[in-house]
Amino acid sequence: MSGQNAERLVERVVLVGFGPVAARLVDEILPAVREGRLDLTVIGAEGVAAYNRVLVADVGTGRTTGEAIGLADAARLRGDGATVLLGRTVRRIDRARRTVLLDDGTKEPFDRLVLATGAQAVVPTLAGLNPDPAAVDMLPPGVTALRDLEDAAKLRAVVGSRGRIVVLGGGILGIEAALASAEEGADVTVVHHGPHPLGRNLDPGGGRMLAAALHASGIRLASDVRSTAVAFRPRAGGRHQFHALVLEDGTELPGDLLLLSCGVRARTELAAGCGLGVEKGILVNHRLEADVEGRIFAIGDCAQVACGDGGCTVCSGSTAGPAGLIGPGWRQAEYVARRLLELAPRRQMVVAGGTTAQTQTAPLAPERPCVVLLKARGLDLASAGNISPELWDAWRPERDSGGSPPSCPPIQVTQWADPEHGRYAKMVTRAGVLEGLVCVGMPRTAAELVLLYERGAELPADRTALFRLDSVEQQDDGPAPADPDSTLCRCSGATLGGVENAIAGGCSSVEEVSACTRAGTGCGGCKSRIGELIDAYASVAVRAVPQ
Amino acid sequence: MSGQNAERLVERVVLVGFGPVAARLVDEILPAVREGRLDLTVIGAEGVAAYNRVLVADVGTGRTTGEAIGLADAARLRGDGATVLLGRTVRRIDRARRTVLLDDGTKEPFDRLVLATGAQAVVPTLAGLNPDPAAVDMLPPGVTALRDLEDAAKLRAVVGSRGRIVVLGGGILGIEAALASAEEGADVTVVHHGPHPLGRNLDPGGGRMLAAALHASGIRLASDVRSTAVAFRPRAGGRHQFHALVLEDGTELPGDLLLLSCGVRARTELAAGCGLGVEKGILVNHRLEADVEGRIFAIGDCAQVACGDGGCTVCSGSTAGPAGLIGPGWRQAEYVARRLLELAPRRQMVVAGGTTAQTQTAPLAPERPCVVLLKARGLDLASAGNISPELWDAWRPERDSGGSPPSCPPIQVTQWADPEHGRYAKMVTRAGVLEGLVCVGMPRTAAELVLLYERGAELPADRTALFRLDSVEQQDDGPAPADPDSTLCRCSGATLGGVENAIAGGCSSVEEVSACTRAGTGCGGCKSRIGELIDAYASVAVRAVPQ
Repeated sequence: MSGQNAERLVERVVLVGFGPVAARLVDEILPAVREGRLDLTVIGAEGVAAYNRVLVADVGTGRTTGEAIGLADAARLRGDGATVLLGRTVRRIDRARRTVLLDDGTKEPFDRLVLATGAQAVVPTLAGLNPDPAAVDMLPPGVTALRDLEDAAKLRAVVGSRGRIVVLGGGILGIEAALASAEEGADVTVVHHGPHPLGRNLDPGGGRMLAAALHASGIRLASDVRSTAVAFRPRAGGRHQFHALVLEDGTELPGDLLLLSCGVRARTELAAGCGLGVEKGILVNHRLEADVEGRIFAIGDCAQVACGDGGCTVCSGSTAGPAGLIGPGWRQAEYVARRLLELAPRRQMVVAGGTTAQTQTAPLAPERPCVVLLKARGLDLASAGNISPELWDAWRPERDSGGSPPSCPPIQVTQWADPEHGRYAKMVTRAGVLEGLVCVGMPRTAAELVLLYERGAELPADRTALFRLDSVEQQDDGPAPADPDSTLCRCSGATLGGVENAIAGGCSSVEEVSACTRAGTGCGGCKSRIGELIDAYASVAVRAVPQ
Repeated sequence: MSGQNAERLVERVVLVGFGPVAARLVDEILPAVREGRLDLTVIGAEGVAAYNRVLVADVGTGRTTGEAIGLADAARLRGDGATVLLGRTVRRIDRARRTVLLDDGTKEPFDRLVLATGAQAVVPTLAGLNPDPAAVDMLPPGVTALRDLEDAAKLRAVVGSRGRIVVLGGGILGIEAALASAEEGADVTVVHHGPHPLGRNLDPGGGRMLAAALHASGIRLASDVRSTAVAFRPRAGGRHQFHALVLEDGTELPGDLLLLSCGVRARTELAAGCGLGVEKGILVNHRLEADVEGRIFAIGDCAQVACGDGGCTVCSGSTAGPAGLIGPGWRQAEYVARRLLELAPRRQMVVAGGTTAQTQTAPLAPERPCVVLLKARGLDLASAGNISPELWDAWRPERDSGGSPPSCPPIQVTQWADPEHGRYAKMVTRAGVLEGLVCVGMPRTAAELVLLYERGAELPADRTALFRLDSVEQQDDGPAPADPDSTLCRCSGATLGGVENAIAGGCSSVEEVSACTRAGTGCGGCKSRIGELIDAYASVAVRAVPQ
């Protein structure tokens, strides 16, 4: 294609990366592509179109298939007029010439460039593992980071033969994979730093509860342990196969597969290579623009929202990197899609010189600090916000009753702990409003706390009233009536009311509801709730039939 | 009187001490005294007959009077035939001659001797205070231990003028006196060892709650502090008056009264002086006998039940001294009264030689480890049993799921802590049965926990169900129906059913119920509950009146 396009009415959009966030962007702008208003080129490094990466562990444990988690169909996109390049990588971005250089030497010109390069697994520094972070693909046989469908296939083989899996790292994806693998019969050991897994998302109490649940699932925990090397054994074919993880004290933990779960790192190389700002991710402002011209956007796990304005109340206090959750990424994709459609010239008018139109689009609303939800057989865990204050930490009896009240109400911690029955709830509040929470083994209480947290609503003064949601009697009465505006699917943002309307409108399976509302298309954690709602509607409908 | 009484049919009982426990013994045997079957001599060191010592602090804060808390009437007892010696002390017991030698040199012969000498305040070793534990009466002006009505008068004078009180020691009587004095307008500072008051009865969590409640009551706390001396100022009349408590670091805490609350010590001097076994108290077996002949008994705060049989399942594990509570003392008094009546010769038969008849009386059932209850405006606190295990202490996730279960179920700790709202509950259980509890700010939950503790009953698996008793909705519904066999008055042992029967039988005031059932005659903590029952009965009766 030619770079001389001052007269073109079709805006050329190049999308680098084809994961779930990119797929959402494609979905949103596809009508404009079909209409010929946008020219779209998608460049994906994997040989397949976008799929739901959140569910890779489920593919690895045989609970679903690669086909079932697909999020895009390359052939259909091409039929709609998009250019879809799979198994191809971008070598360089030329901002001056507005082109990207591909690995085969070809160039793709762009008017707008969207970076959705995602994140890659952190490979720990262990003797025997390639320390080059850019060479994750070079992991030796028997070692995987469980990021893509190829990794899933490796896990599937070991789980299928009920083999031994060593999980290194106590991150949420590793713990979910460990739980699912153990449930499917694999022999699992989790090795991690710190006193308990999920160290970033759990307080010590919640960590103890998690450790107990892992034990109950038959998972061995090696806590507060550092590993130094990977031992290999010879394998037919010349290459060596993972044999054992070697700990600092020389202990060898043997296994058939080493699953790395040491966190991820945003893929920022391309952005850094063309002079864009990069910290934990590609720096973007509240309009998700990575450059001052507004030609380059970054979304999803590779993007870090930080406008650089010290006085910005949205950014202040938040120096966090990408959330690593699909929900925020999807909302970014939707936002950039709207921007692209606004910026695209309309057929009936010519934007002089093709300059960036100044639009009135409001900045993307900031995400609430992320909520971590972990669901597995016998384990129901929620965590959000500031969980570091401990019971009594922040609490001091008033030393001098004659003193003036502090200008800012203090942090308060309330805690219910019943380890014998696997129940734990910690509420970190200020003036009765949650600033953080941890809840284990009390799913309905957790859902209510998350709702109150996200709304910034005040808790009841009698906090024990919340626990009634999980009491036996309450379950006999059925769940308490819920607010139709409450979020049912945290990934897609679908509300309870939206899902109920879809069911009332005729959706009679989870798949139909998902197709209609997008609820359940992310982490899948809400699918059982959707199923319950369908069942409840059906039973009410049956009862409503006249005798 | 003569020691030659082989032919006498009247058993001579000498009772040393005239406190509440002695008064109960007198009450029980008085009919036999009237009948002439028993000859009773009571020797009291104070100038007045027995009164309810538990309420001395209430006299000191002006909430009741010395007359109102009287438990015996010396003139009436004398009219019934008893010898009552007040303001007299026993110098020595002559076991061989079965006589007691009084301070005035007279002798009282006995067939049975009951020691109810009680306890005395521990006087701390402070420069300026007499270190002789036998010389409590020698405390200087402005220093008191709040044991008797004279002490109460000293407190009354300071509270009445809203003076400054320094309480030394974090024991329950000191804390109760501090709370009551502060409520009546006195300026109170509590100085104590350890991180919180009531160190023996509260875990760290409960201690923090108590400290906060004390602060809220306007009481200053000097925690973890050692005091070294008492400073005096000259006073008209020659003697010096307490001026300030001097702390280790030289700080002076000024006050008008120094109230010592450093614990009590059983008065064992007489028993030790005549060769009876003494440890923390006068050692008695399960029949409360202090000697092998069964002629000398000890009851109440001076007695320590320990049979000396290493294989005794009742004693094993219990090396505790006297409980220091009125309830167990009253039960001991009732038991010894029954024994005395059994042992007394009947008119119609002659017991040859006056030897000890071998009776079939069962040993006194052991008391459950004591329950501490503290009630004050804005503070409702219960503590019982083994409270030292902390949350997570005893709890470890099962290290090896293939291991055999332990032979003894482990100790489990469950905890609810909401310091912001002054609520705290800790349950220490084994196999679901309470071994200890602490409950603050949740009076109905506390009552239920104490009941379950005393019965050794299993807690509900959903422990949060207990908290509903203190929830707002529950209070709207009125209290849950209670078991008529449950203990309403912990001091007297009166049951709910007994009190309800008394009310249904015509008692229409707390005083009438107390006179009829003894409920409310001890610490008085249950008087408000009796009042509620009277009100509830009256309102039901009104409703039952036909229109």
